[in-house]
Amino acid sequence: MSAPTEPVKIAVLGCGTVGTQVIRLLLDQSQDLAARIGAPVELAGVYVRDTSTPRDAVVPASALTSDAEALVDAADVVVELMGGQEPAKSLILRALARGAAVVTANKALLATHGAELYEAADAAGADLYYEAAVAGAIPLVRPVRESLAGDRVTRILGIVNGTTNYVLDEMTSKGLDYDAVVAEAQRLGYAEADPTADVGGHDAAAKAAILASLAFHQRVALDDVYCEGIEAITQDDIQAARETDRVIKLLAVAEQVEDGVSVRVHPTLVPVEHPLANVRGAFNAVFVEAEAAGELMFYGQGAGGAPTASAVLGDVVSVARHKVGGGKGPLESNYALHEVLPMDAARTRYAVRMSVPDRPGVLAAVATIFASHEVGIESVRQMAGKGHAGLILSTHRARESALRATVEDLRLSEHVKDVWSVLRIEGEL
Amino acid sequence: MSAPTEPVKIAVLGCGTVGTQVIRLLLDQSQDLAARIGAPVELAGVYVRDTSTPRDAVVPASALTSDAEALVDAADVVVELMGGQEPAKSLILRALARGAAVVTANKALLATHGAELYEAADAAGADLYYEAAVAGAIPLVRPVRESLAGDRVTRILGIVNGTTNYVLDEMTSKGLDYDAVVAEAQRLGYAEADPTADVGGHDAAAKAAILASLAFHQRVALDDVYCEGIEAITQDDIQAARETDRVIKLLAVAEQVEDGVSVRVHPTLVPVEHPLANVRGAFNAVFVEAEAAGELMFYGQGAGGAPTASAVLGDVVSVARHKVGGGKGPLESNYALHEVLPMDAARTRYAVRMSVPDRPGVLAAVATIFASHEVGIESVRQMAGKGHAGLILSTHRARESALRATVEDLRLSEHVKDVWSVLRIEGEL
Repeated sequence: MSAPTEPVKIAVLGCGTVGTQVIRLLLDQSQDLAARIGAPVELAGVYVRDTSTPRDAVVPASALTSDAEALVDAADVVVELMGGQEPAKSLILRALARGAAVVTANKALLATHGAELYEAADAAGADLYYEAAVAGAIPLVRPVRESLAGDRVTRILGIVNGTTNYVLDEMTSKGLDYDAVVAEAQRLGYAEADPTADVGGHDAAAKAAILASLAFHQRVALDDVYCEGIEAITQDDIQAARETDRVIKLLAVAEQVEDGVSVRVHPTLVPVEHPLANVRGAFNAVFVEAEAAGELMFYGQGAGGAPTASAVLGDVVSVARHKVGGGKGPLESNYALHEVLPMDAARTRYAVRMSVPDRPGVLAAVATIFASHEVGIESVRQMAGKGHAGLILSTHRARESALRATVEDLRLSEHVKDVWSVLRIEGEL
Repeated sequence: MSAPTEPVKIAVLGCGTVGTQVIRLLLDQSQDLAARIGAPVELAGVYVRDTSTPRDAVVPASALTSDAEALVDAADVVVELMGGQEPAKSLILRALARGAAVVTANKALLATHGAELYEAADAAGADLYYEAAVAGAIPLVRPVRESLAGDRVTRILGIVNGTTNYVLDEMTSKGLDYDAVVAEAQRLGYAEADPTADVGGHDAAAKAAILASLAFHQRVALDDVYCEGIEAITQDDIQAARETDRVIKLLAVAEQVEDGVSVRVHPTLVPVEHPLANVRGAFNAVFVEAEAAGELMFYGQGAGGAPTASAVLGDVVSVARHKVGGGKGPLESNYALHEVLPMDAARTRYAVRMSVPDRPGVLAAVATIFASHEVGIESVRQMAGKGHAGLILSTHRARESALRATVEDLRLSEHVKDVWSVLRIEGEL
């Protein structure tokens, strides 16, 4: 622990877009940071694999080093922005073992090895902060972990992936097809050349695991999260959503129910009047329901160099204050033992869109199939076609397994030509 | 400081709606709170003026006491929910002097005597937390004070008073007049019998002072805040706003500009596509712009017993963790020395609505008056009437003093029949 007048030494591991912005803010705002921390901050060094690669002008060449371990060993605070599993994990463990504080934006690592990292931090009495790992610049970890610490979070619905929100928003506002929008997003840099991690929901699933762990005070790992992406969403789905006054969003859902917690990522129908429905473009937003606080929403930029760097620096200030003034941040509380339910046991509402022959008695037959699985029908909307009718049936809350069995029976029924899509509904009263 | 197995003793001062809910949560969630804090919590007592007044069943009669000083002296954490200046202030100072942590929801006290209280907390090395004092359940103090500690907040636009948002929203959605809506709000309990503190903007001004202090790292007192209420807003204003694709909201505005900071509360035109425009009913929302983080918004319930109690309990958990684990929360940083600008020096955009004779040359004459004060016109919208025309002129960003001089000249001009209203515009690009 440094004496107040000694500088707090910050090591930055990784020098991509976020790392560069963190270094810029550290240097540009050094006066402000010193006033807020109670001691000056000093850039101890920047780990990069190849020190000869050209860097942004804000990165002091003299700070670059390819010896990550020596850098970690010289720092009070280690900022891990390399991403991936190794060597990030080993370096974080090395820093924590020394008692250095760690700030990381590495959601994939936290979602898979979070338990091990938190334990190491706890054992060493060191801080492990990760505000930037979920929803970029949006303060979310601190509010859920601290502001709501006296309340019971019952549900989180989050738009936590900007790429997919951009794609769905463009499909909705411009009537374009999925492939065309993804191609355009790639051209604009909103989507990666290989967009699988985003459009497949995997990025959102990692964030869902972290959020659920925080909200429910227990470890939820990436493997516990059911994950469905947006690749199969068609313009027909978007139009049908509009017909029923809903929009399609890729949501991370974490909810506490009677028999456990359910954590999942999937395309979701959200009523147009819900605050999440109006989140446009690449913005993120997380809607939190808590017993006493009621409904809360946090909105902002979920990615990008500067926004993510803002979240990282907020954490750096917090842990540096602890280095100067003593104390440490809240423990990851990990005392709860709710069962993480399999997807089959999830309960939500569904919209089933199907094609049926245009003749009397069909609706009765279809309704009977739903009833046979005890899935209640909340509303039916019919759209006429040539020789067939399009039906959108919205159900009451039902168990996923019951809905799946219903859809299987629908597909086998002579009264149903085709089941076009099944989408889950969230955010309706 | 208690050893981990010793309970943390909590004194609650005041037993109104919020106090009752705080007591309920403290008792109901004692297991969870103990796990999150690392030690059990114990209700040391509840200060009320009259112990014989009937209370909600959740309040243990044995906990009631009318000896506030003895209660404060026996507590590790003092939760002040009495409101008003005295004896709240003396009791808080007494608690801090003993090294007890204080959690308060008393915005009026913080906005007037914040500096003295923060200094007392600092001198004693004690925590002074007040998440519930601004925007009720919405985590806002912690995000601004901690999450954005590595960034520069440039502007805050907040809907921080639920009563006025309800009144304006009803006027907008139902076309009702101000008086009718206020009467209905009083009937429903959304407005006080004497609604002055809310509709006059004074409650919002106290919150603006607290938010500006946090955001700009310096003391801003209630007296520094310019304050205009919604009493003069008419259905004509609401309609004219709609004509120009805007809605009227009572905003707390805190912005850092080149020559200082400007903190003010006034009815404001907000473009319909702005996230604040969609905040309905009695909900609160605070929109924050920061250099690196970009745009953030925090949304939720700004008042009410349970939501406010949630914010109080979050603070109780934070300060109790410090009692158990050592350390204390961040200092109120108070190092910045920006001038707090008088309202005359504020710069924003304006919509001036007036009646002019329906004859050629009038617009040229009006535009000349604006130009003579160097107030640029961004757009003009004309609405024809009988023998006169209604004009809405929206200006570019201009200094308040220049706008006021312009309006004075307009009132004196033979080309203007009447200036109906002047409203400031925020949130447009």
